[in-house]
Amino acid sequence: MKRVLVTGASGFIGRQTLEPLQRRGFEVHAIGRRAGTASGVIWHRGDLFDAHVVTTLFKSIRPTHLLHMAWYAEHGSFWTAPENFQWVGATLTVLQAFALHGGQRVVAAGTCAEYDSRYGVCDEQLTPCLPSSEYGACKQAASSLMHAYARHAGFSAAWGRIFHVYGPYEHRDRLVASVTTALLNDRDALCSHGGQLRDFLHVADVGDAFAALLDSDVVGAVNIGSGEAVRIAELSLRLAMLAGRPERLRLGARTAAPSDPPILLPTVQRLATEVGWRPHRDLDSGLRDTLEWWRSTLAASVKETQ
Amino acid sequence: MKRVLVTGASGFIGRQTLEPLQRRGFEVHAIGRRAGTASGVIWHRGDLFDAHVVTTLFKSIRPTHLLHMAWYAEHGSFWTAPENFQWVGATLTVLQAFALHGGQRVVAAGTCAEYDSRYGVCDEQLTPCLPSSEYGACKQAASSLMHAYARHAGFSAAWGRIFHVYGPYEHRDRLVASVTTALLNDRDALCSHGGQLRDFLHVADVGDAFAALLDSDVVGAVNIGSGEAVRIAELSLRLAMLAGRPERLRLGARTAAPSDPPILLPTVQRLATEVGWRPHRDLDSGLRDTLEWWRSTLAASVKETQ
Repeated sequence: MKRVLVTGASGFIGRQTLEPLQRRGFEVHAIGRRAGTASGVIWHRGDLFDAHVVTTLFKSIRPTHLLHMAWYAEHGSFWTAPENFQWVGATLTVLQAFALHGGQRVVAAGTCAEYDSRYGVCDEQLTPCLPSSEYGACKQAASSLMHAYARHAGFSAAWGRIFHVYGPYEHRDRLVASVTTALLNDRDALCSHGGQLRDFLHVADVGDAFAALLDSDVVGAVNIGSGEAVRIAELSLRLAMLAGRPERLRLGARTAAPSDPPILLPTVQRLATEVGWRPHRDLDSGLRDTLEWWRSTLAASVKETQ
Repeated sequence: MKRVLVTGASGFIGRQTLEPLQRRGFEVHAIGRRAGTASGVIWHRGDLFDAHVVTTLFKSIRPTHLLHMAWYAEHGSFWTAPENFQWVGATLTVLQAFALHGGQRVVAAGTCAEYDSRYGVCDEQLTPCLPSSEYGACKQAASSLMHAYARHAGFSAAWGRIFHVYGPYEHRDRLVASVTTALLNDRDALCSHGGQLRDFLHVADVGDAFAALLDSDVVGAVNIGSGEAVRIAELSLRLAMLAGRPERLRLGARTAAPSDPPILLPTVQRLATEVGWRPHRDLDSGLRDTLEWWRSTLAASVKETQ
């Protein structure tokens, strides 16, 4: 019997892990800031910063598996927020309760921001970590602690490093969502020069990749990416073409942040070969899905306000 | 006005920092498991695992400087103990309370066990970290978090990586203390082959180096060592000669742990050039001092039991 507890299960990525986990035969327990509506999922409530609550939770569920997606993720502030430091401690608390009540296998969410971004291409084995933000530094520390504690307590652990994600429920100020909503609202979509090379993965594929990683016995850091490099300008143009509004795209209208590296790409050999996972959507189908989701979401919100 | 709080102030190394700090003009506040007798030091009590106690402590003292030496250090068990993980959280709690109440400069105790020991020579800038123990992993995580939090909260921080230490109050099962007490008790001193190259620093010098580091504005990792490499066999032989019992030394009588690296040495350029610190004792005078201390301690304990 595989029984998983998913933390951060109502978040942008967490919510996308529930269905793939069920498909893989897990009994799925979830905890998040808002209870979701996914059928067949058992929702729990509780503050992960309260060690007593956490212990009680694990004692009652006794999950064999843990998918730890919870973290502070407020758009804009999450890079430097002091909450990042609190989440290192909360992550340890969760792992200790998990181990204490028979847990066997953990996967947690890491980030490309752990790597030294000057390397451009980020490989789990080759590329040194040198985070430049509080977010990256705390994720890296949590990763080190998780791996050390997993060896100590005798459970299996992997750390999925997320690169660029887009899709339904994305925050409206993030790249793909902001371009999409501008185009659909017939406003200009303001972008930077767009020359940056990135790896974009549809959020449903990110969720599916995490489910596959949890269901494998691969340990250590694993990059979560599509393996396809695309310039931000090209991605924006594809979106604008799909939306039928190429004339609304304004490349160069915004200044790129000086800290924005020209290349930030994962190697995905571990994910493809060891986990045996590949994306279900290519970029065009992922963008089309996203566009459709926003179209119906915006239409629904117009209806609501009428 | 320089006001320092020393944590772990009754420990093997912590106790040796108090006098050098006073000499440098610090008002010295101390917290430790046992209150010490050092004159002019203001002792406090409290559990560093209790966030409320920690906040109250910093609020009342308002130290400008923090020397964080506290950690789990039980001989034998400290390498793998689960307490290592708790101390990462406690260290963050201490740093947050320090920053909240006006703290400006922190130095904390790290370890050579953070480095990838396969490199042999450990340089702060060049040598990758790859701890193989819970102790090393948690110290490394605490270091990463301390540096990230120092940037976040705007205080200055350095991390002293301790190599091999000997001297008064050493645990009797550690190398120098066990050889010394065997020799003084006219028993055989059982050692491994002794070919390992190490850097030994007298604990009073370690304490003085930490005081100097705290009183500097050097940031980041700084190795704490003598800069002199010595084989363990040579050190043991010098001890035996000084004790007048060379025939009691039994090199090769114990098996060296397979994990014991042949070379484990610090580069000390940062300490010597940037901090401007050099040891006050060479190995012979340090060993002589240690021998004298054990002679009077053992004599006192014999007297007590008579």
